Amino acid sequence: MEHQHQHQHQYDHTHSHNHTTVNEEDAIQSEQLHLIKVITAFAYYKRHSLNHNHRRRRDYLSLSEHHKKLIPDYLDKVNQVDGRIEENMNLIRAIVKSASMFTEDADDEPEQNPKKQQQNPPVSPMDMDKVRSTLKQFVRDWAKEGECERKVTYDPIIQELNEIYKDLPMHDRGAVRVLVPGAGLGRLAFDIAKAATKSQLSGNEFSYYMLFASHFVLNRIKTENEYKIYPFIHSNSNIKSDEKQLDPVMIPDVLPANLLDTVDFSMVAGDFIEVYSQENNREAWDVVVTCFFMDTAKNILEYMEVIHKTLKQNGTWINIGPLLYHFEDSSSGDASIELSLEQVQDVAKKIGFEFKKESMVPTTYTSNPDGMLKYVYECAFWTAVKI
Amino acid sequence: MEHQHQHQHQYDHTHSHNHTTVNEEDAIQSEQLHLIKVITAFAYYKRHSLNHNHRRRRDYLSLSEHHKKLIPDYLDKVNQVDGRIEENMNLIRAIVKSASMFTEDADDEPEQNPKKQQQNPPVSPMDMDKVRSTLKQFVRDWAKEGECERKVTYDPIIQELNEIYKDLPMHDRGAVRVLVPGAGLGRLAFDIAKAATKSQLSGNEFSYYMLFASHFVLNRIKTENEYKIYPFIHSNSNIKSDEKQLDPVMIPDVLPANLLDTVDFSMVAGDFIEVYSQENNREAWDVVVTCFFMDTAKNILEYMEVIHKTLKQNGTWINIGPLLYHFEDSSSGDASIELSLEQVQDVAKKIGFEFKKESMVPTTYTSNPDGMLKYVYECAFWTAVKI
Repeated sequence: MEHQHQHQHQYDHTHSHNHTTVNEEDAIQSEQLHLIKVITAFAYYKRHSLNHNHRRRRDYLSLSEHHKKLIPDYLDKVNQVDGRIEENMNLIRAIVKSASMFTEDADDEPEQNPKKQQQNPPVSPMDMDKVRSTLKQFVRDWAKEGECERKVTYDPIIQELNEIYKDLPMHDRGAVRVLVPGAGLGRLAFDIAKAATKSQLSGNEFSYYMLFASHFVLNRIKTENEYKIYPFIHSNSNIKSDEKQLDPVMIPDVLPANLLDTVDFSMVAGDFIEVYSQENNREAWDVVVTCFFMDTAKNILEYMEVIHKTLKQNGTWINIGPLLYHFEDSSSGDASIELSLEQVQDVAKKIGFEFKKESMVPTTYTSNPDGMLKYVYECAFWTAVKI
Repeated sequence: MEHQHQHQHQYDHTHSHNHTTVNEEDAIQSEQLHLIKVITAFAYYKRHSLNHNHRRRRDYLSLSEHHKKLIPDYLDKVNQVDGRIEENMNLIRAIVKSASMFTEDADDEPEQNPKKQQQNPPVSPMDMDKVRSTLKQFVRDWAKEGECERKVTYDPIIQELNEIYKDLPMHDRGAVRVLVPGAGLGRLAFDIAKAATKSQLSGNEFSYYMLFASHFVLNRIKTENEYKIYPFIHSNSNIKSDEKQLDPVMIPDVLPANLLDTVDFSMVAGDFIEVYSQENNREAWDVVVTCFFMDTAKNILEYMEVIHKTLKQNGTWINIGPLLYHFEDSSSGDASIELSLEQVQDVAKKIGFEFKKESMVPTTYTSNPDGMLKYVYECAFWTAVKI
């Protein structure tokens, strides 16, 4: 897989973008700092998670003897979680190692540096949350346990693409260019490529957590079920069965490398607006597929305009997702525009889209299949054509 | 309605309880401070919410003229939300006024004090979140829009009670004593009382947000649909239709005062463990009903032991709820014990409960019926008998 890296990725979601006040050198330096921040978060996963889990041990030991006897296996579970944190770290370590193409300091794990270990981890709770979310994204995109979520959200998109190009013979689909902004760990783009082997697929992603992890799974994993991960051990709330919670999830369920040699597939790092508003992307794509992406916008009007601009005449925009605006209550001070679903569709029509199909699709997102709490999104699903 | 207030409520959930190091005078002073904190949060609702909404106005004004024209009604909606915040404040003002039985300074609204207005509101985001949650609790408990949630969680409890006492004639049920810890805004206890008019019902509640609001709805509201509230205006994420979001919810759907003259119904303020582990509550209750309550425990073993102790021999514990342990990731430093559902049931058996019925019941909790994101809890529902 080609992995273009365009130096457009200077900041995290919580930082502001302002290209008129920073020069090119500052921008590159900011990007390096940001990269190191993400790699540091990955590197501190084990230490942070062990600390977090140790609180349970302390709380158990503060119980009366009588209460301890009522839950004799409690400490055993805490210890088992420790072991599974170590196993998760095996995957994370491999991700960080494969990210060394992005930066030089990828191997600096805190355990190997006793001086650093005495200080507080230089990682915010939010960054650590993103590391844990990355583990759950692996379930959604690359484990059989994620099949249910993928069937509900990815399959309708692929069916829609098949419907649009049903009259185009398979061997002519090499000219069809499909763009997937917010590609995450890449499974949707991969499944589209698999369904129409000759298409030119391009994923775009802003988050380095996702970029490192997708680079790893798409390029470095050598066999199916190569890694065991334990994505649901970080909270003990809403757990039905300890045994199921502690069960491993095997990744990947399919081997992406097998396919990627035969298709034209690339992943572009960077902010969607910055990359795709450029002149070389004008009317460059036949289809833009947005899946759980539109609400990552600070200004969803801008997203829609860039999607419109980047599509060829009569090109298709397929969307599925909720409207959980990521910047609505952001502490970053970024401006945020929040439209209702009705408003979004109204603006899309004004910008120059004609809606062909619309429906609502309920689905979870990176949910623990065995948990007692599920976030159910009622997603808007539509196909619209650039007119 | 009798409203016992036992001075057991010294601290908020985020504070620690330690009765061996504070004397009685300190305890009363702490309680007064806590009361004032909650009343202050209610009093600042309007100012805080208007500020929060004003951010949207600022962000809109920072858009290009071209973008402003694409969403010409945006500011109009922001203004309409302002008006609805004012209307919500009418209810909140009435709640605070009726809370003056608890404290002296209930009427001190920030607007009336220009000096205070210049300072930052002395209210944490978490406290303000509790005020907004209180508005949503009114929908769950006292609006027709909450009927769906009540049918799924309250009705099975009432059916179970009817089943248990089916051989007891209605006029003999005056001796049946039912306790509802975590009674919230009181609808479950009210519905139980309504179904078996002669039972002795007692709710227990720790949170002053809930206590003030339940005191108000149970004692002060004079007519059905007396208040219009707008509980879903505080976030613009996952909204399908602006119009529906801005629609009022009328409360109450039934008038509690009508019933309360005829039944033996009381609400006890205070921490469940502190109140019900006392000797006068030993073997004092025929039924304990816990609904979305067990996971409010720091130590769920203690909750189960007190439920067991407070029940008469052969008394019944009916439970419905998830296991979202409130103190799992608390910043308060409180110890927290988190058991899986299997473990909870295992411990209950060890303590001396025999399970008669068990099932799982999926339900939302204070959810926006028209929203695109729903938190769906798979609740454990059981009936267990003290042996």
